[in-house]
Amino acid sequence: MKKAKVGIIGFGTVGTGVASCLIENSSIIKARTGMDLILHKIADLDIERPRGIVLDKNILTTDLNLVLEESDIIVELIGGTTTAKKIILKALQMGKPVVTANKALLAKHGNEIFAAAEKMGTDIYYEASVAGGIPVIKSLREGLAANKIEKIYGILNGTCNYILTQMAQNSQSFEDALKKAQELGYAEAEPSLDIDGFDTAHKIVILASLAYGNWINPNNVYTEGIRNISLSDIKYAKDLGYTIKLFGIAKRMNDDIQVRVHPVMIPNGTIMASINEANNGIFIEGKPIGGTLFYGKGAGMAATSSAVIADIIDIARNLKHSSSRRIPCFTNDKHYGILLPMEEIDSRYYLRINVTDEPGVISKISTILGKEKISISSLIQWETSETSKPVPIVIVTHSTYEKNIMKALKKIQTLSIVHDKINLIRIEDLQ
Amino acid sequence: MKKAKVGIIGFGTVGTGVASCLIENSSIIKARTGMDLILHKIADLDIERPRGIVLDKNILTTDLNLVLEESDIIVELIGGTTTAKKIILKALQMGKPVVTANKALLAKHGNEIFAAAEKMGTDIYYEASVAGGIPVIKSLREGLAANKIEKIYGILNGTCNYILTQMAQNSQSFEDALKKAQELGYAEAEPSLDIDGFDTAHKIVILASLAYGNWINPNNVYTEGIRNISLSDIKYAKDLGYTIKLFGIAKRMNDDIQVRVHPVMIPNGTIMASINEANNGIFIEGKPIGGTLFYGKGAGMAATSSAVIADIIDIARNLKHSSSRRIPCFTNDKHYGILLPMEEIDSRYYLRINVTDEPGVISKISTILGKEKISISSLIQWETSETSKPVPIVIVTHSTYEKNIMKALKKIQTLSIVHDKINLIRIEDLQ
Repeated sequence: MKKAKVGIIGFGTVGTGVASCLIENSSIIKARTGMDLILHKIADLDIERPRGIVLDKNILTTDLNLVLEESDIIVELIGGTTTAKKIILKALQMGKPVVTANKALLAKHGNEIFAAAEKMGTDIYYEASVAGGIPVIKSLREGLAANKIEKIYGILNGTCNYILTQMAQNSQSFEDALKKAQELGYAEAEPSLDIDGFDTAHKIVILASLAYGNWINPNNVYTEGIRNISLSDIKYAKDLGYTIKLFGIAKRMNDDIQVRVHPVMIPNGTIMASINEANNGIFIEGKPIGGTLFYGKGAGMAATSSAVIADIIDIARNLKHSSSRRIPCFTNDKHYGILLPMEEIDSRYYLRINVTDEPGVISKISTILGKEKISISSLIQWETSETSKPVPIVIVTHSTYEKNIMKALKKIQTLSIVHDKINLIRIEDLQ
Repeated sequence: MKKAKVGIIGFGTVGTGVASCLIENSSIIKARTGMDLILHKIADLDIERPRGIVLDKNILTTDLNLVLEESDIIVELIGGTTTAKKIILKALQMGKPVVTANKALLAKHGNEIFAAAEKMGTDIYYEASVAGGIPVIKSLREGLAANKIEKIYGILNGTCNYILTQMAQNSQSFEDALKKAQELGYAEAEPSLDIDGFDTAHKIVILASLAYGNWINPNNVYTEGIRNISLSDIKYAKDLGYTIKLFGIAKRMNDDIQVRVHPVMIPNGTIMASINEANNGIFIEGKPIGGTLFYGKGAGMAATSSAVIADIIDIARNLKHSSSRRIPCFTNDKHYGILLPMEEIDSRYYLRINVTDEPGVISKISTILGKEKISISSLIQWETSETSKPVPIVIVTHSTYEKNIMKALKKIQTLSIVHDKINLIRIEDLQ
């Protein structure tokens, strides 16, 4: 096979970018692959709206079945988990290889979709589902294939990183930063998918599943977003030498694994702490490779198109060499045990407790921590001029188990000297 | 094919690392690939010296022909450009796929070696030749295959980066930092390959050739090392807001390309400026992906082993699926014109000129720069207490062509007020 017909389903931003790049870089792609990748069909409900791209009129159609029937490679770019799932399963059942950027769908139904691809002996690739501007899925699956993966830390959501950057650099409140992100098109009108951590959870589920060879159920992944991060937390973190980021985390713990999403405090001066604005960063530690870090754009038309076309090229090469399933979309290694419940993880913790400024406060709190065998690494009470108001005490603990800190917090929260909800942020020292 | 016999030639540090990892991670590798990668033979002149690894005694041999004959995949790890070349060509002529970490050999004889592989329809992979701890070759060749590459900046030599880090952070002289690097095993007793930039040149030649589809002759690449960087340059750079690194640079300029190796001043606060110690960093800008950055260990037994085994796995998959040449080791795109001579590049420049402290000095120098149409961006003369000594003037220029700055420098150097050799460092703003 010297040419492959590409059929795109979904003519939105990414679909437009993929079509443009296939046309614009066609001679480079042909030189590199020895193949013509022909933009054969694009299906969308709306094929009238101008997208700023000139296409042969035979390319556009509202009939997605036509795309499925006539194309050699199916590119699913409509998003969502209902119609997209049906389309992908249908394409796979027709034996057609699929490229998708649909992280929510894969995180939730990866097992079913991968099983369909395996049964039909065809491929489904999804580089664009995590950090389009970073070739991390290929790196994890192939470049690091020799490695036992120890841990993955990722800044995987550009919206949250943009908001945290605005808060840290321009002292904007969470609400103002979110509003600005919405104005710039970084955040949706209904921003929950991003700011409550679900999008990060979908992505870390995909990376962790690949790394540990067990498709993880996102419902079992502890997921906490950035709504509770206040400007004062960012300031105190800075004073303590830390930056606050939203991380997706996957770690090996003996033979089990932990996967979680929550804000973290990481040391200033690390590369991760300097990844700002809407950019993504992913740190992977493996044996024997050591630590390796990837940085780039997380989303957007251009970066995502690059990832989608990389997959199209990989599949085209498989078609040319009749080597489908050469790199399975997912292999169930079964090398690791269970996904640990959140109570079993260990971490250092930052606690911000607003208390009445009176004698004995610190003693009461530290007694409760001591009973749960939690040792204090540092404690700061900032001076305040407003004597009538509660004062914030910030405590940084040594490493302890989540269950211990939660038990202690529950008790501290009920103390009469404690005002407001205690804020807890986990600390990752990135060692 | 459900198993592949791996034959290693060269039982040094990397050979030992590859053998250990093949044994240690064998079950993970088998799960991921569905194949047994069997460590079949290791050839070395010395098979007696203990390497701290337990091997079946049938594995070790001094007969490299036995390895070539009996193995399915040949791993060349002896280094050098003479015997290694013969071994690789022989293996390819036998139709055997090859994995190598030999950057000097590929930079110098890539064309001949790749032609031999193409002729025999077999593969030669070389991920470990550039930044072992970063899967950059696979990323450039596959993950970024859709992209027109605009530029590549790389900190590609751990020894130089270690020395520059010591100088910047601990105010060590170049000589002291080099000595420390030698004590730690980062630098050879004869350090020229590293500190004069040749190793970086080999690596940027490989990356640039892949990116631009033209195998570049390293003899035509401007190569300047770090011997002329003084502590005062590092201090002045810092005052101006810059950090000094040794870069390999490849850039598209219209339809031609430039490839060069020299120290650069890059803005503080960029991720590249924060890549310290013996680590490597590679920034690639492409269309449509935008900028993407990779960070990791450049060398060492463990990181290099990871890269070698990734290639072994790729080749094993090709053997299993009879898909040799699925991804050619190198494709001659012929998409770009000539390698521009150094005189044609444009840059901003930092100049440190030691002058007699007398009236009219700055006028004389700026007149010469003006005649070559070089515009001054900033000029600093630091106060000095030692009035009898020459004083340093630091000039930062706006962008100009290399031929212009060189012409001006030649004239300035002959001024009677100028002492010592003028030091020039190119500035890359990383935009």
